Amino acid sequence: MPMMTAAQYEESLRRLNLVVYMFGKRVENVVDDPIIRPSMLAVAQTYALAHRPEYEDIMTAGSHLNGARINRFTHIHQSTVDLVKKSKMGRLLGRNTGCCFQRCVGMDALNALSIVTYNMDQELGSPYHKRFLKYLAYVQENDLTCDGAMTDPKGDRSLPPHQQPDPDVFVHIVAETAEGIVVRGAKAHQTGAVNSHEIIVMPTMAMRAEDRDYAVSFALPSDAPGITYIIGRQSCDTRKLEDGLLDRGNTRFGGHEALVVLEDVLVPWERVFMCREYGYAGELVEKFAAYHRQSYACKVGVGDVLIGAAQTAAEYNNVAKASHVKDKIIEMNHLNETLYCGCIACASEGHCEPSGTYAVNTLLANVHKQNVTRLPYEISRIAQDIAGGLMVTLPSEADLQSPETGKWLEKYFAAKGEVPTINRLRILRLIENLTLGTAAVGYLTESMHGAGSPQAQRIMIARLVNMAQKKRAAQNLCGIEEE
Amino acid sequence: MPMMTAAQYEESLRRLNLVVYMFGKRVENVVDDPIIRPSMLAVAQTYALAHRPEYEDIMTAGSHLNGARINRFTHIHQSTVDLVKKSKMGRLLGRNTGCCFQRCVGMDALNALSIVTYNMDQELGSPYHKRFLKYLAYVQENDLTCDGAMTDPKGDRSLPPHQQPDPDVFVHIVAETAEGIVVRGAKAHQTGAVNSHEIIVMPTMAMRAEDRDYAVSFALPSDAPGITYIIGRQSCDTRKLEDGLLDRGNTRFGGHEALVVLEDVLVPWERVFMCREYGYAGELVEKFAAYHRQSYACKVGVGDVLIGAAQTAAEYNNVAKASHVKDKIIEMNHLNETLYCGCIACASEGHCEPSGTYAVNTLLANVHKQNVTRLPYEISRIAQDIAGGLMVTLPSEADLQSPETGKWLEKYFAAKGEVPTINRLRILRLIENLTLGTAAVGYLTESMHGAGSPQAQRIMIARLVNMAQKKRAAQNLCGIEEE
Amino acid sequence: MPMMTAAQYEESLRRLNLVVYMFGKRVENVVDDPIIRPSMLAVAQTYALAHRPEYEDIMTAGSHLNGARINRFTHIHQSTVDLVKKSKMGRLLGRNTGCCFQRCVGMDALNALSIVTYNMDQELGSPYHKRFLKYLAYVQENDLTCDGAMTDPKGDRSLPPHQQPDPDVFVHIVAETAEGIVVRGAKAHQTGAVNSHEIIVMPTMAMRAEDRDYAVSFALPSDAPGITYIIGRQSCDTRKLEDGLLDRGNTRFGGHEALVVLEDVLVPWERVFMCREYGYAGELVEKFAAYHRQSYACKVGVGDVLIGAAQTAAEYNNVAKASHVKDKIIEMNHLNETLYCGCIACASEGHCEPSGTYAVNTLLANVHKQNVTRLPYEISRIAQDIAGGLMVTLPSEADLQSPETGKWLEKYFAAKGEVPTINRLRILRLIENLTLGTAAVGYLTESMHGAGSPQAQRIMIARLVNMAQKKRAAQNLCGIEEE
Amino acid sequence: MPMMTAAQYEESLRRLNLVVYMFGKRVENVVDDPIIRPSMLAVAQTYALAHRPEYEDIMTAGSHLNGARINRFTHIHQSTVDLVKKSKMGRLLGRNTGCCFQRCVGMDALNALSIVTYNMDQELGSPYHKRFLKYLAYVQENDLTCDGAMTDPKGDRSLPPHQQPDPDVFVHIVAETAEGIVVRGAKAHQTGAVNSHEIIVMPTMAMRAEDRDYAVSFALPSDAPGITYIIGRQSCDTRKLEDGLLDRGNTRFGGHEALVVLEDVLVPWERVFMCREYGYAGELVEKFAAYHRQSYACKVGVGDVLIGAAQTAAEYNNVAKASHVKDKIIEMNHLNETLYCGCIACASEGHCEPSGTYAVNTLLANVHKQNVTRLPYEISRIAQDIAGGLMVTLPSEADLQSPETGKWLEKYFAAKGEVPTINRLRILRLIENLTLGTAAVGYLTESMHGAGSPQAQRIMIARLVNMAQKKRAAQNLCGIEEE
Repeated sequence: MPMMTAAQYEESLRRLNLVVYMFGKRVENVVDDPIIRPSMLAVAQTYALAHRPEYEDIMTAGSHLNGARINRFTHIHQSTVDLVKKSKMGRLLGRNTGCCFQRCVGMDALNALSIVTYNMDQELGSPYHKRFLKYLAYVQENDLTCDGAMTDPKGDRSLPPHQQPDPDVFVHIVAETAEGIVVRGAKAHQTGAVNSHEIIVMPTMAMRAEDRDYAVSFALPSDAPGITYIIGRQSCDTRKLEDGLLDRGNTRFGGHEALVVLEDVLVPWERVFMCREYGYAGELVEKFAAYHRQSYACKVGVGDVLIGAAQTAAEYNNVAKASHVKDKIIEMNHLNETLYCGCIACASEGHCEPSGTYAVNTLLANVHKQNVTRLPYEISRIAQDIAGGLMVTLPSEADLQSPETGKWLEKYFAAKGEVPTINRLRILRLIENLTLGTAAVGYLTESMHGAGSPQAQRIMIARLVNMAQKKRAAQNLCGIEEE
Repeated sequence: MPMMTAAQYEESLRRLNLVVYMFGKRVENVVDDPIIRPSMLAVAQTYALAHRPEYEDIMTAGSHLNGARINRFTHIHQSTVDLVKKSKMGRLLGRNTGCCFQRCVGMDALNALSIVTYNMDQELGSPYHKRFLKYLAYVQENDLTCDGAMTDPKGDRSLPPHQQPDPDVFVHIVAETAEGIVVRGAKAHQTGAVNSHEIIVMPTMAMRAEDRDYAVSFALPSDAPGITYIIGRQSCDTRKLEDGLLDRGNTRFGGHEALVVLEDVLVPWERVFMCREYGYAGELVEKFAAYHRQSYACKVGVGDVLIGAAQTAAEYNNVAKASHVKDKIIEMNHLNETLYCGCIACASEGHCEPSGTYAVNTLLANVHKQNVTRLPYEISRIAQDIAGGLMVTLPSEADLQSPETGKWLEKYFAAKGEVPTINRLRILRLIENLTLGTAAVGYLTESMHGAGSPQAQRIMIARLVNMAQKKRAAQNLCGIEEE
Repeated sequence: MPMMTAAQYEESLRRLNLVVYMFGKRVENVVDDPIIRPSMLAVAQTYALAHRPEYEDIMTAGSHLNGARINRFTHIHQSTVDLVKKSKMGRLLGRNTGCCFQRCVGMDALNALSIVTYNMDQELGSPYHKRFLKYLAYVQENDLTCDGAMTDPKGDRSLPPHQQPDPDVFVHIVAETAEGIVVRGAKAHQTGAVNSHEIIVMPTMAMRAEDRDYAVSFALPSDAPGITYIIGRQSCDTRKLEDGLLDRGNTRFGGHEALVVLEDVLVPWERVFMCREYGYAGELVEKFAAYHRQSYACKVGVGDVLIGAAQTAAEYNNVAKASHVKDKIIEMNHLNETLYCGCIACASEGHCEPSGTYAVNTLLANVHKQNVTRLPYEISRIAQDIAGGLMVTLPSEADLQSPETGKWLEKYFAAKGEVPTINRLRILRLIENLTLGTAAVGYLTESMHGAGSPQAQRIMIARLVNMAQKKRAAQNLCGIEEE
Repeated sequence: MPMMTAAQYEESLRRLNLVVYMFGKRVENVVDDPIIRPSMLAVAQTYALAHRPEYEDIMTAGSHLNGARINRFTHIHQSTVDLVKKSKMGRLLGRNTGCCFQRCVGMDALNALSIVTYNMDQELGSPYHKRFLKYLAYVQENDLTCDGAMTDPKGDRSLPPHQQPDPDVFVHIVAETAEGIVVRGAKAHQTGAVNSHEIIVMPTMAMRAEDRDYAVSFALPSDAPGITYIIGRQSCDTRKLEDGLLDRGNTRFGGHEALVVLEDVLVPWERVFMCREYGYAGELVEKFAAYHRQSYACKVGVGDVLIGAAQTAAEYNNVAKASHVKDKIIEMNHLNETLYCGCIACASEGHCEPSGTYAVNTLLANVHKQNVTRLPYEISRIAQDIAGGLMVTLPSEADLQSPETGKWLEKYFAAKGEVPTINRLRILRLIENLTLGTAAVGYLTESMHGAGSPQAQRIMIARLVNMAQKKRAAQNLCGIEEE
C-alpha cells in the first residue's frame, strides 16, 4: 500500500470510534470539531509533504524491512544520515505548521522499541523483537500515526509505583489471560492523541523488582474498548469557535494534548513488547527520551515562523531598518540556529545499536533539549519587543468588520504604505498566537517540559560527560601526578 | 468629601455615559460586562485599600493643596518619601490584584503636569499652572480615576506629525473657539480607559514649530461627547464569559486596554494645560515617562503573586524541597527584588522641581524600566518550569465538574496528601493566567512596551549617564593627560 | 585631632612595625615596596578626598560621640541618609581609584559591632558596648584605617570548629589571663591588611556551645606581637616591578590581600568585644555581612572606570559611532546602574537598630551583592569586545620605547587622528588591568567571593523573603481558601 | 618524508633565523626563550599526538595529492567526515594543552586557498591553483607549521586602503619584478607566528578596483629577509621567568601572538596565490573566516580543562557534593557541549566546493563562533565561583617553599584529607591561569576577537539566513497572500 495522502489520512480517522471528552461533553465528531480539527490538519501535513517531490528526500525513506518507500515517521533510522534527516524533517514541518505536528512521538517510540526489544530478546530469549517487527510492518504498510505514551500521572512523586496509595497513577498490568494482558492507568499530556491510529505505551521511568507490574510496553488501536480521551485546554483555545480567522493568529494549524485513560483495556499478546521485564524499563525510557529530545528540532522551524513574523511586523511598521531592530532579528536567528546546531550535532554523532537501529548521541540530545527549555523563551521575548504593544491591545476581528468601529481601526492602525491594514493585524495576531496563545503552549511550555523537564536533562548531562578525562587533563597541566 | 469607597467608585462609574465597543458591538452596561468588570474591580482595590488602616500610610497622603487626607493616586509628590511610598503602593496593589490596576497612569500625568505647567507659566506668563491646580483640586476632592493618555497611533514612523498623509494619527487641535479648543485623533493602548472618570491627554513626543497644533495637553470627562472607546482583546479574554471561575486563573481581577478615539471633541479652556507651546511637549513627555517608568514597581507585586503561585504549585506537587526547585524559587525572588531595588532607588534619589513637586531620578527610572522589559520574562519562564506541563494540558473546569470525566481528573491529578485536587488545578490556572493568559498581557508584553519600549529607555540611558566623568576617571588612571 | 591627610596617613604607616612576607622574603619597607605601595596609595585616597570641599558631604560625617567632623569610614551610621552616602562614597572612591580601596571592611566591622555589643550588654549585662565605644572614640580621634577580619581558613568544611583535626583553622581563644585573652589562628583574604592601623577580628559564622572558644571578637594594633602577614599574589602583580608605567594599566593604584596569621597574640581586655558568647556570633556575622554586601557599591565606581575606558578606546579606534558599539556602551551603563540601584535601595530602606545604629535592609543588600557576582563579569566581557584583540597582543612598553621596534608600533598601532598612539595603548592596558590583571582580582573574583560567595547570598534571600505573604496573595486570587 | 615528531619539529625551528623582538630586545634563541618555549611546546603537541595510535584517525589523514599519511593540519578536507574530525582534533588538542596550539590558522589558510585559487583559475585562466598545489605538496611533505596571516592594522577604520594616510596599514604590493612581487605592511595578532615555518598572507577584507594592490595572497618562509616579529605580552607572561612552576598554573604549555612586520619583502612568483585580483579578496576572506570560526572547536577542549579543574578544586575543598556546586558543574558542561554542537554541526553540514575541497556550513560556523564570544566567559565566571577566593589571594610558590611562611600556608591552606596542600594550590593556579592569566588571553579575549569580532559574525548571520522563506512561512500561516 502506498503512503497515505492527507485526504486519506483524514478519512482514516473518520473510521475510528474514539471516546473523546472536551469541556465536559463527549465529542461526537472528532475530525470536524473546530477546536480539534486544526491539530488534525497539522498531522495531515506530515502526509501531504511526503508526496511533494521537493521534500521526498527528507520526508520519506526506504523501509529496512522491505525497501518500500515509506513516510519517515514510520521509519527505523538506518544511518546517521537518517538521523540528520529526521532533524531536518522536524524543522521543515515546524516551519510549515507553526505548531506541534504531533507525529514524532510515535516515531521515537518505534525506534526506541526497535533497540530495546532486540536487546531483551538477545539476553532473555523473549519474543518481543519479532512481535515488534511484525507490528512495525503493519504501521509502515498502513502509514499509521502513532501516539507514543510515556508520562504517567505519578501521584506522590516521593513514592515508587507499588507504594502509591492509588496503584493506578502508573499504568500497570491488572490481569493476564490467554489472549493477553489487561492494563489500567492513564497517560498525561498526550500530544495529538486523538489524531492517532495507534497508541504505543511505555513505562515512565526505570523500575525495580517490586514494580514489575509497571514495567510494561504495548500498542493499542486508539479506539480500543476502555480508552477515554479528555482534551486539555490551551490558552486562547476557544478563538477557534469564533467567527472569522484573524484572531486565531495561525489560521490553519494547531495542536492538542489529552489525558488518556486506560480502564482495564485488553492488549493481545502480539501487541505486548515488554511484560514485567523491569530491568529494561529504564533503557526504554532513556532511548525514547534521547530520540524525543532530538525531536525538538521542530522548535527551530517554529522559530523560523516567529522570526519571519517579527521581520514582517517590523517591515509593516516601517522600522525594519532601525539598527536595534536589525540587531534583534539577528539575535533571534542566532539563538534559533544555535538550537539547530544541537539537533544536527546529536544526529550526526549518532551510532549504531546492536539491533541495527541508529541512535542519537545521548549527551548532545540532552544538551539540545536543555537549550530548547531556554532559547525559545528569549526568542519569544524579542519577538514581543519587535511587534510592539499593539499585539496585546488590538481589538477583535469583529471590531474590524463592524461598520461603527472598523473605520477607526483602519484609520488608526494603518500600516506602512501599500500594505493592507488587515495584514498588519494578521501578523500581530500570529505573534500573539506564538508567544501567548495556543502555539505558545507548544513553543514555550512544551519546549520546557516535553521529552522531560529541564532537570531531567541536567541529570543526564551530569551522568554522561567524561569527568574523569577532564579532571586528568587539568591535573596533568598543573603538575598533579596521577592519583 | 472623603475618599470614595470601592462601592462608591463602582456607583460613580454607573453614572457615566461612555461609548464603548467590544467584539464589534456597543457595550450597553460597561460596569457589569463580564469581560470588563474584573478590570473595574482591580481599580476598585485602589479605593478599597485606602480605607484599610494598615495601608493608610502607603495608600493615602495629605494634599499639599489643603492638607486633606486623599488617595495617593491623586497626590502631588512632596518628598522623596512620597516617591518611595508610591513605589511601595505599586507593589502592594500588584500583589493584591495580580494584574494591572490601571490607576497609576493618571497619577503620573497629574504629577508631570504639575511640573511642566509651572515651568511654562514662569517662563511664558501663561495661565496653565493655575488652571491645573484648580483641576487637581477637583480630582482630589472627588477622588477621581484619571486615564493618562499619551501614545498616538503615529502612522508612518519616519514622518513628523504635520507631514503625515492622515493628519489625525497624532491628536491635534482642529479648531479654536471662545469656549475652548476642538481636538481630533486617537490614543492607543489606553489602560483602564473605561474605568476612568477623566482622560488627561498629553503629546506623545517632542514637537517642533511646524507641529505646534500637536503640542496640546488637556483633560476631558471620560464621557465627553465625541469620545469612542474600542476595547482591545487579550489572550484568553473570553474565559470570563464561561461558566465557572477556575479556568480564569485569576478569579477576581483583570485589566483592559482600549483605543480611545477623539472625534472633534470640545475642550473648555479651563481644562487646557498646553496649547501649541511646542517647546514644552518634550519636557512633558520626559517627566511623564520617568514617573511612569517608576510605576512599573507594580510588576514586583505581580512577581510576588507568581512566586507565591510557583511555591504553592511546588508544594502541592510535593517537590518544594528538591534543591533545584528551591534554587529556582530563590532565583525568581532574586530577580524580583532586583526590580524592587530599581523602583526604590529612582524614588529615593528623587529631587525637587521648581514647582515643589518631587521628581524621580530619571536615569535610574529608565534603568528600572529596562530591567522590567527583561526580568519578568525570566521569572515567568522559571514559573513554567516549576509548574510542570500540566499547566497547559489540563482539561477544562467543565471536565472536572462532569460526572463522566470528573472522576478521572480527580483520580489522576490528585495533589499531595490532604490538598484538594481542585486547589492544585487552581494554582496551575493562575500560573497560566500570569504567563500566557490575560495577566501575561500585563506582566510580560505591557512590561515590555508600557511607558516606552526598551529602545526608548536605552536612548535615555545613553543621554543621562555622565560619560565625560567616566572617561576622565579612566584616562586619569592610565596616565592620559587632560585632553 | 583633625582628620589625617594622605601624607599623614602614609607617615603613620611608616611608624608601624609590621611583619610582612612576600615572594618568600620579609618585606623590610612595606610603605615603599613597589608591589604594595599602589594599594597604600588607594587607601590614601580615602584620606585625601575627605579634605576636598566638593566631597565633604560624602566623605565626612559628624561623630555621634562628640559631633566632631570625622572621616565617614570611622562613622557609625545615624540615618538612612548616612547609609546612602556610604554607598555613594563607595562609588566615588571606586571611580577615583579603579580598584579596591580597602577601607570599607573596617567601617563595616565597627558598625556591626556597634549593634551587637549593644544587644549583648542589654541582654547579658556585659561590658562590651562601653568598651567598644571607647575603642571607637580612639579610632575616630586618630582617623585610623581598620582591617575587618572575618574569614577563617575553615579546614574541612563539613566539620564544626571544635571537631577540626587542626583546631587553629578557626581563630580561637587559647588562654585567658588577667590582662586579656590569648588567641591563635588565621584570617584569609584580608584586603588591605598591611595598610591598616588596626585589625578587628570577628567570628566567621554562627557558633554553638561546643565552639564557644571560637566565638570571639577583638581589636589589635596591626603590629601587635605575634601577627604575621603573607601577601597574596595577583594576576600581573610583578608588572609593578618593571620599568615604565604603561604596562600596569592603572598607573596609580592597586589593592592587595594577605593571609594574617595570629600566633598566640595577647588581646587586652579593653579590646575584647565578644568572648565566648556563642549565641551572638551569628548575629555579628550577619550584620557585618549585610553592611559589607552593601559596600560592593564600590564596584559601580570601578564599572564607571571600565565604561569610560571602553568609550575612550572606541573613540581612539574611531568606532564610537557604530550603532553596535553605542548599544554595547549603553548595556554596560545599564548593568552598572542596575548595580547602583541595589546599593542605594538597601541603604534607603535601612532601619534603626536598638543601639541607634542604622542597618541596611538585609534582603536587598544580599540581592545587591548577588548581582555583583554576575554583572561585572558581563560588563567586563563587553569591554573586551569593544577594546578589540590588541588589548592582549600589544607588545610591551619597552618595545614601544626601543629604537628598533618603537617605530613599527607607532606606525602600525596609530590611533585615530591627533590622538597619540601611546594613549591608545594606555587605555587598552587599563582595560587589560581591569578585566585580566591586578584590578580584575577586585572587579571580578573579589566581586564573586568578597562579603560571601554567591550561595551565601542565595541562602539569605531564601530566608528573608516573605514567602507566606506571596503564597497567600496567589491563593487568594485563584480562589483557594485560607488553609 | 614521514610526519615529523615533536623533537624533529623543535629541531627544525632551531634552523630558522627569525628576527624576533620582545621587551625591547632581540630574542637570540627563540626556541629556548622561557616565555616563548611553552607556546612552541603546545605546537609540538600537534606533532606528538599524530604519532599516537589512539589518535591516528583524528590527527592524520591521507593526502588527496598522493595518498600519503599526513598530519591533518596540512590536509585539504575531502569530506564532511574530514571536517568533523577537524573539529574533534581541535577539542582534543585544546584539552591536551589547555591553551591555543596555534596550528589551525595555517590549515584554514591552506583550505581556503585551495578553493579560491581553483575558482580564480577556472574563471580567469590564472596559474594560481597549480602553484598552490605545488606549495601544498611542499608543506605536506615537510609537515610544516604555517601561520595564516590575515589581520592588517587597518589604520583609520572609516577609510579604504588606498585612502589611508599611511598606505602601509594594509599589506600591499610596492613593486613587481621578474622574480616576484615586493610587499610591505604588517599583520597583527599573529598567533604562533614565531613557531611557524611558513607565513601565508591573505587580504583582510573584500577589496575594490582602487585597492587592487592590496588584493594579494602569498606564502613566505618565516625567516625570509625583511620580516620582523614583535611579541605581544600577555597577562602574567613573566611568571614564566620566575623560579618554580606552580604559579604558572599551566606548567607545560602556553601561546603567543606577534606583530609581523613585512618591510619590502620579495615573494617569488611561485609563492604568489593572488595578485591584484581584487574581486576574489572577499571570497578568500569569507572562506578562511568560515573555516577559522569552526576552528574555535579548540575552546571546547580548553573548556574541558577548566571544568576538570573546577571539579578537582571542588573535590579538594570537599564541596563537590553540595547541590549548588553540582549544578554549576552541570551548567559548565551544558555550555561547553553547546559549543561542541556548533563546531560539529557546521562541519557535518559542510559541502563540496568546485575544487573538491569540503567547506563548512558558513551560517552555522558563524553561529558557533558567536557563541564562542559568550559562553566561555560564563564558564569562566562559574569556575571562579567554584574555585573560591583563594584563587586570587594565594601567596607565591616562594612563600610556600620558604621556611618562614611555608609552614603557615601548609597549615592554613590544607586541602581535604589526604590531598597534598600543594595540589590544591596547583589546581587553583590553573584556574587563575585560564580565567585571568596567560591562558585567559586565549580562552576569553581571543575567543572574542579571533576569526573576527562578534559583530562580524552578526553581519554574516544576517546575510546568510533565508529570511524570505521565514517571512513566507509566517505570512502563509496567518492568511497573508503572496505579495
